[in-house]
Amino acid sequence: LKAILIVCDGLADRPIDELNGRTPLEVAKKPFIDKLAGLGATGIMDTIAPGIPPGSDTAHLALFGYDPHEVYRGRGVFEALGAGLKVESKDIAFRCNFATVDSELRVVDRRAGRISTEEAGELSKSLRNLTSKKHPDVKIIFKHSTEHRGALILRGRGLSRQVSDSDPEGREVKIQRVKALDNSGEARKTAEILNELTEMTYKILNKNPINLRRKQAGKPPANIILFRGAGQMPTVTSISEIYKIKAACVVPNALVRGVAVAAGMTPINVPEATGTVETDTVAKAKAAVNALAKNDLVLIHVKGADNASHDGNLKQKIRMIEKIDEMLEYLLENLDMNETYIFLTPDHATPIKLQNHVGDPVPIVMAGSGIVKDDVNFFSEKTCAKGGLCRLRGINLMPIIMNYLGKIEKFGA
Amino acid sequence: LKAILIVCDGLADRPIDELNGRTPLEVAKKPFIDKLAGLGATGIMDTIAPGIPPGSDTAHLALFGYDPHEVYRGRGVFEALGAGLKVESKDIAFRCNFATVDSELRVVDRRAGRISTEEAGELSKSLRNLTSKKHPDVKIIFKHSTEHRGALILRGRGLSRQVSDSDPEGREVKIQRVKALDNSGEARKTAEILNELTEMTYKILNKNPINLRRKQAGKPPANIILFRGAGQMPTVTSISEIYKIKAACVVPNALVRGVAVAAGMTPINVPEATGTVETDTVAKAKAAVNALAKNDLVLIHVKGADNASHDGNLKQKIRMIEKIDEMLEYLLENLDMNETYIFLTPDHATPIKLQNHVGDPVPIVMAGSGIVKDDVNFFSEKTCAKGGLCRLRGINLMPIIMNYLGKIEKFGA
Repeated sequence: LKAILIVCDGLADRPIDELNGRTPLEVAKKPFIDKLAGLGATGIMDTIAPGIPPGSDTAHLALFGYDPHEVYRGRGVFEALGAGLKVESKDIAFRCNFATVDSELRVVDRRAGRISTEEAGELSKSLRNLTSKKHPDVKIIFKHSTEHRGALILRGRGLSRQVSDSDPEGREVKIQRVKALDNSGEARKTAEILNELTEMTYKILNKNPINLRRKQAGKPPANIILFRGAGQMPTVTSISEIYKIKAACVVPNALVRGVAVAAGMTPINVPEATGTVETDTVAKAKAAVNALAKNDLVLIHVKGADNASHDGNLKQKIRMIEKIDEMLEYLLENLDMNETYIFLTPDHATPIKLQNHVGDPVPIVMAGSGIVKDDVNFFSEKTCAKGGLCRLRGINLMPIIMNYLGKIEKFGA
Repeated sequence: LKAILIVCDGLADRPIDELNGRTPLEVAKKPFIDKLAGLGATGIMDTIAPGIPPGSDTAHLALFGYDPHEVYRGRGVFEALGAGLKVESKDIAFRCNFATVDSELRVVDRRAGRISTEEAGELSKSLRNLTSKKHPDVKIIFKHSTEHRGALILRGRGLSRQVSDSDPEGREVKIQRVKALDNSGEARKTAEILNELTEMTYKILNKNPINLRRKQAGKPPANIILFRGAGQMPTVTSISEIYKIKAACVVPNALVRGVAVAAGMTPINVPEATGTVETDTVAKAKAAVNALAKNDLVLIHVKGADNASHDGNLKQKIRMIEKIDEMLEYLLENLDMNETYIFLTPDHATPIKLQNHVGDPVPIVMAGSGIVKDDVNFFSEKTCAKGGLCRLRGINLMPIIMNYLGKIEKFGA
């Protein structure tokens, strides 16, 4: 028995006026997602708890069976894991952006004109041997991932994740001085290193020939690194250890991939999967089906609907639902449903109108041998609320999956 | 106001191919259970938590209002309570089997040919004065219950429940040497006593005239005692104390009766109730109705459907449901439903196909004055998922019962 878990980031929505009060899930053409609903059981789920708007990292921690209130210690560590870095338990990790600043370190473009993966990769070579002058004992590891994105690890004694971001994130134009968030020497030391790194990356990158060429071409130079989301490894036991299973994941998005890696899933690279609305969902489905041969559980994460929601792009959100439906078509045609379970759920709702995560419950569907069917055969926020699963919590999902796979031990006699 | 709680062990199931995807609850003739559904409200319930397969002991702890994750400390103590032994807080208690071993202590029959209650009772007289040579300070109490079953208590200083079982439970043929499961002197001492007892019971029982007679008659001798499920008293406040009520139980099964006793229920002996598929359910119903005169709450436990499920015997499971229906017929005809509440639920699902407990939600029904009726008038896994109770946890049930009995105090002003 095997399972595929499909998490559609930000898929759920609220009634939209221009859709006459319907939601994107109610207007998109999605015969195969609806077929899945008809085959199995539906319900609604509070990923963290009713009313709590989840981040994608905390939502996935919950979906993998961990209590995010207990284990979550910042996003940076997931960005680092997702970028392929090994993270040690005392490391402090950050999400990084290549950005454009002017000579007074005012942030002109937080994403350096969404610089290409190739150019940013080339630039990152000049950031290989960063050392703090004040704290030369601390090892500094920078890794670029895709486009403007990267991750940073600080490794050494006396560090803390209690530091603010240098990334102003649109709140101010000037780059932020990193501050200690408590009175500890550890937080002060960490802030000092980051402030030193801010200046250092500007000096190194601003004179890099690639940036000189970008300026000449009228493109914003990627001439500084912004830091945010200080994080430390959550102390979790991997699901492979808890349930004695093998798990893999198809997750182009670095943050969510990092959570999956922290939970013990092996990432599978699918070049056609981009983590954007341009992604090839069928290629992901194919990779997942192949991975099932050697794994008990394969996670597919689809980011596009969340991107479209954050951009307020209704048409694109509906198109993404239809692309997810193509994935379901492939899965339902290529999987033996007597041997395989499919679970599909958003990690949270991102209403088009609000362009941000909210704490609404999300619809969920599961199908496979032994799952008691309900009468719902249409997948939406409204119909699933009438489903046989009633209302679940995100943290319940992984035990439910493992229960159907027969991978969870009886508690008691 | 009074309440009867009927727990049907292992009653729930999954869709079964040979029933065209229906469950035993969907095919059995059970007009009176369905009548109860029509009178009241239904729902589904996760006895412990979604996906977690409960043991019958942990499930009943939850149904009696205790968090098994907090209070559960092994099954042995419930077996001892169920066998009628008084258990002290520091006692270590075990479930015991009369078994058959050959001269090299290989287990030939874990149940000694399901020896009769009479013969095993006679044999147990030779186990009255057991003393450890190494640890003569420890009091050893053995008590036989029914057929091959019994319980053991070790009472004294420096004992621990962190010991393994001597019962190989089909995993190996050779009797297991009991091991300490941690590095404590307490665990080592306890293991030493059990290993001594293993040899001692063999020496005593093997030469017992009853066994010599059994051998001559071609029957397996009950020539050793197997130990398993080391347990210690959970520190719980009895429900009679919490709610200031009187509670009784009709529970032939020793394990579950032990949990009920730990929760403060007085056991009622019903000779016709056997804890097997042969049980007389109407006799249990009669005893329960009589007991209501002096009690606020009476628990009826029916084990048969679980036995049938563990044996993979579909016909017997369906027959057990019909026998439970006869019980409901008696109750509905002999109780004033204006004055009495009936709650009926499985403790967990034991699918015929898997012959083991699973973590699926179970259907539940409750009826009585003031309970808001829903539209469900058929009791099954599927229909109850549409019921007015939505989805409960096992630990919620006792406060719900006490709420209708008016026995739970307002929290706050």
